[in-house]
Amino acid sequence: MAGIGIDVAAISRFGTALERNPGLAERLFTPDELRGPSGARRATASLAARFAAKEAVAKCLGAPGGLRWHDVEVRTAPGGRPVLRVRGTAAALAAGLGITSWQLSLTHDADVASAVVVAS
Amino acid sequence: MAGIGIDVAAISRFGTALERNPGLAERLFTPDELRGPSGARRATASLAARFAAKEAVAKCLGAPGGLRWHDVEVRTAPGGRPVLRVRGTAAALAAGLGITSWQLSLTHDADVASAVVVAS
Amino acid sequence: MAGIGIDVAAISRFGTALERNPGLAERLFTPDELRGPSGARRATASLAARFAAKEAVAKCLGAPGGLRWHDVEVRTAPGGRPVLRVRGTAAALAAGLGITSWQLSLTHDADVASAVVVAS
Repeated sequence: MAGIGIDVAAISRFGTALERNPGLAERLFTPDELRGPSGARRATASLAARFAAKEAVAKCLGAPGGLRWHDVEVRTAPGGRPVLRVRGTAAALAAGLGITSWQLSLTHDADVASAVVVAS
Repeated sequence: MAGIGIDVAAISRFGTALERNPGLAERLFTPDELRGPSGARRATASLAARFAAKEAVAKCLGAPGGLRWHDVEVRTAPGGRPVLRVRGTAAALAAGLGITSWQLSLTHDADVASAVVVAS
Repeated sequence: MAGIGIDVAAISRFGTALERNPGLAERLFTPDELRGPSGARRATASLAARFAAKEAVAKCLGAPGGLRWHDVEVRTAPGGRPVLRVRGTAAALAAGLGITSWQLSLTHDADVASAVVVAS
């Protein structure tokens, strides 16, 4: 295992940040992340968990500067399971650390969203 | 490693669900889970962490339908450490994924219970 | 992997405990943990995450009695990444379990601090 990362995001605080910063959601998330399988915009809780996933990946990579948010993407595998896809800045950093696979889990309840990521 | 799962449960919300749904506790938990080593019923916080463990296992298994709650059981090892025992529907799914061992950790404080599970 | 540990600490509750118990911070944390890289005392949220890391390590070690808080230390690696250093009681227990390396991640937001630790 190359590293583990965890992140917690308060959903209400995250939602307020999205409301107060026009364009922030689009800077953080790819179009596929912003909309769920049904095509409707994802709920704030679900976006907060995805933001936590990006932060957890960044921790696995040593929290470097220069990481682009869109380069760490949470995709939905057939069956509904969330999986990570890294590219660009994140893929380059991962390659430099010898990371070849990612494991991810997301959760939210009440006001807490969290993600844990394992890089190996 | 075959997968990682995390789950967060708000303890007060979980407690309300148990109160409002007679029989829910018995559907979710085995008799050994419902009562602690002393024989007294476990506190809601402890049950919420065990519920989170079951959800975290389900995520490791791909969150399939048909998983029975009693087939994922949190046992207490000598010394007090929580360990997972899977059987039935959960054991069949684990075997299909090549999972042969489980690691588990539980926590709760204030209103937050959480569990993390590693399948390998 | 020898084990995984997770811990959640409510930051406000942890801060109250520190205020009400003179000397508690010094019993829990080494001087290097109490002060950040700038030399200023770490914020309560950062200390709560470090406390959660110590609890998570204890869970990996089987939550034994006799573990000294200072024997599990969160250090800051060059670049700012948190890393674990174990010694004394914790190192002896780890050696007995065949643990040779530790992975750590910390997080806090709003009132929740959390840590996850992997022992291998």
